[in-house]
Amino acid sequence: MSSNKQNEIALAAVKLFEQKGYRATSVQDIADAVGLQKGSLYHYIASKEDLLMQIAHQAILQFNEQLQSILAQDISARQKLELMIRTHLTMSIDNLETTTVLWREAFALGEGPQEVIARMSDEYLNLVTQILREGVQSGEFHVTEPRVTALAILGACNWVYRWYQQSGSLSAEDISDIFGRLFLDGLLT
Amino acid sequence: MSSNKQNEIALAAVKLFEQKGYRATSVQDIADAVGLQKGSLYHYIASKEDLLMQIAHQAILQFNEQLQSILAQDISARQKLELMIRTHLTMSIDNLETTTVLWREAFALGEGPQEVIARMSDEYLNLVTQILREGVQSGEFHVTEPRVTALAILGACNWVYRWYQQSGSLSAEDISDIFGRLFLDGLLT
Repeated sequence: MSSNKQNEIALAAVKLFEQKGYRATSVQDIADAVGLQKGSLYHYIASKEDLLMQIAHQAILQFNEQLQSILAQDISARQKLELMIRTHLTMSIDNLETTTVLWREAFALGEGPQEVIARMSDEYLNLVTQILREGVQSGEFHVTEPRVTALAILGACNWVYRWYQQSGSLSAEDISDIFGRLFLDGLLT
Repeated sequence: MSSNKQNEIALAAVKLFEQKGYRATSVQDIADAVGLQKGSLYHYIASKEDLLMQIAHQAILQFNEQLQSILAQDISARQKLELMIRTHLTMSIDNLETTTVLWREAFALGEGPQEVIARMSDEYLNLVTQILREGVQSGEFHVTEPRVTALAILGACNWVYRWYQQSGSLSAEDISDIFGRLFLDGLLT
């Protein structure tokens, strides 16, 4: 088992799942992309679904770990939220293919794996909600429904996978500033 | 050709596409759901893809028409935005299966139809951007990047299709109030 080869296979799968969709991608397509016979590919992967699960799981794990380390920092709730937005957008944009597979294709997973992903997404939502609650306690934020407010912020950040490619010249940094201003200050003058 | 039968077929297709995904749904599944032979189904539909396109096109057309009528009203930019959020969330939640098919499955459309949907989504984005620009001109809003700000608001509203079902007791009205407060006033005290 070569972990290099496994990485290469996962990268090829992400690309194919993003371009063609998970269901339209065959195991043969993946084998072709990495120059293996289909039979040999199965030395490295258990199944196509297992590959999708690995990709989705790895992606969401990174989101969660990053956010946990932000929450552990000794900074204000406002700074945590700004850092969360910046980190979330940077990770999403730097790994746009993976993010697309996570949000668009993971639906194709079976019930068990899908539940794992849903539970991890919930964990992430809980952490964002916690930042908002901390901000209420410290007197920085006024939020009546932290969970739904967190869902609004997450939705805005996650939706980026659908429009970033066409958006041209904006960096993750630029977008974070614009989003941060909207969520913190609001639109009203 | 019975337009009633066509409606029934479209409704059955939305349900199946939402539950199983577009690619995993066969024409036979749709025929079974409406009690027709597969051959007879083709009296009513051109293809499975055509059915998906009809569903997506109809959904996005309704979003656009509603927003156009909001923009035509003689009310403030703030009121237009509040009405946009309320209308968008109500339509999304009242037609959760259709919205899910629009945002999750329309990727399976061929290039031509997909471009039509993308163009219509852009039109919608332009209308939301226009509301923000109106608000800047009237002195109601401070927005430096109206297009990206509109994408943030739209992302938050569209993401609802992913979490509404589990959210329990909140109405579209409740969520609109929470979202509206976030976007207008921001989080900061």
